[in-house]
Amino acid sequence: ARSDYGHIRRRGIRVESRDGDFDLPEVAVYAQPEDIGPVDLILIGLKTTANHVFGRLLPPLFTPDRTALLCLQNGIGNEEQLARIFPDNAIIGGTAFLCSNRVGPGHIHHTDYGHVHIAAYADFPPDRLTVFADVLNRAHIDCTVIDDYLEMRWRKQVWNVPFNGLCTLHNQATDALLQIPGESERIERIMHEVITLARALHARRSGNRPFHLDYDWIAEQIRRTRTMGAYLPSMLLDRRAGRPIELESIIGVCLRKRDTEAPEVQLPAIQELYTQLSATESGPV
Amino acid sequence: ARSDYGHIRRRGIRVESRDGDFDLPEVAVYAQPEDIGPVDLILIGLKTTANHVFGRLLPPLFTPDRTALLCLQNGIGNEEQLARIFPDNAIIGGTAFLCSNRVGPGHIHHTDYGHVHIAAYADFPPDRLTVFADVLNRAHIDCTVIDDYLEMRWRKQVWNVPFNGLCTLHNQATDALLQIPGESERIERIMHEVITLARALHARRSGNRPFHLDYDWIAEQIRRTRTMGAYLPSMLLDRRAGRPIELESIIGVCLRKRDTEAPEVQLPAIQELYTQLSATESGPV
Repeated sequence: ARSDYGHIRRRGIRVESRDGDFDLPEVAVYAQPEDIGPVDLILIGLKTTANHVFGRLLPPLFTPDRTALLCLQNGIGNEEQLARIFPDNAIIGGTAFLCSNRVGPGHIHHTDYGHVHIAAYADFPPDRLTVFADVLNRAHIDCTVIDDYLEMRWRKQVWNVPFNGLCTLHNQATDALLQIPGESERIERIMHEVITLARALHARRSGNRPFHLDYDWIAEQIRRTRTMGAYLPSMLLDRRAGRPIELESIIGVCLRKRDTEAPEVQLPAIQELYTQLSATESGPV
Repeated sequence: ARSDYGHIRRRGIRVESRDGDFDLPEVAVYAQPEDIGPVDLILIGLKTTANHVFGRLLPPLFTPDRTALLCLQNGIGNEEQLARIFPDNAIIGGTAFLCSNRVGPGHIHHTDYGHVHIAAYADFPPDRLTVFADVLNRAHIDCTVIDDYLEMRWRKQVWNVPFNGLCTLHNQATDALLQIPGESERIERIMHEVITLARALHARRSGNRPFHLDYDWIAEQIRRTRTMGAYLPSMLLDRRAGRPIELESIIGVCLRKRDTEAPEVQLPAIQELYTQLSATESGPV
């Protein structure tokens, strides 16, 4: 923990959840990885705007026997970046489908959903993946092992690109965004482009292997979002707090992947969103 | 200008150059692009670690007639990023072969070399490129138009990867680096890998078109560097000043390009350098 370290150490963590509130009065909280020492599995939940600290932050946690890295971050490209820095570590991708915000020091609101999917990024042994899923499930975190890493990552991306992007652009929660005239259609156009891109990337990498992310996922995502109420996506919270937004890893990465791996795919709605959000990002020079 | 704005406005710029010292007592200096207004050509010299401000910083300078963007930054991928944000602007790549450091507010030391190469990034009209080169040449900045953008960028990269990376890792100037036992060989191994990667990228994109960046460039670069004396590459200056280093755009990008466009190329020396530098990068989380 960083700014919350002192608070969590003294007062623990409070979770207010739609599944029941609870307190964790005593938490094994650390300010430095050196204070933790070697572990079997590192669960990575950093903002992707802080990925430049991977190389310094993670090695103090490594065992000689290939500590596994479970990447639960937003967007695309984080596992690739981990693999470039740590070619000898096993890497697992994970997506968390949950509505949850930190509302104060050591204080979490969990408002909806909560399941986690994990998938091997490269040649991770499947039996070891199941062991990690069991650990999460025994902690009452609903975790499913997914066969296809690419499909898992892009399935989440279908929601992340339009809702993080457009809520931030309009400074509105998800329910208010869906009320703005024309924005429902824009959300659907963006989701359509994300799926087209994901399908092209899959076809290029895996050829004839089946790919289950299809355009019916759009209506399903809109339907699920309508049940969330006034949810504030993480990018909007980052913007409101004056932090850098995850523009490159969530939105820019679609254009980068298209440019390098699927140049035939047209992404006009994502392009427009990226240019508009770029114009609003101030941050330090 | 940012922190130097007040100083340059009041006192101008002082250049101490191996070609003769001079003062520019009155300089048209601006703190905000809005104060400049529309221009024909934007010369971009930002640190690549600040590329997230492109979208906000550049549009106030645009004319309706496709303001051209001349990117004189370090590393690979900056023109691509500009093209993703501004698909309607003409983009030119440029490399500056010069040894020059900012040593204080409005105070530049120019210690060696000084020529600039420019090349069209995409479908930029060649005659307009010549116009811009003439502008620079009339200002006594030696500028040559290069046919092949890719070759131009990677030729500079051959120097940038080992000397920025290893000088920063050892906290040593170029001359001291060349004295460390074993490091000359490491520099050459890294240069060899950069050239192999550049040649693979060229072959993939341009097929049978000739490519003039070859392994004889290694000895030439070492020779030129020996004449520079105790030069401090920009990455080392950034590190010493506590600024983020251009790790991704200079070094990480080699591994990314390999992963996406030339997976058959082996880059063990660059991989090792990237992992080592990653471990030394602290920066804010």
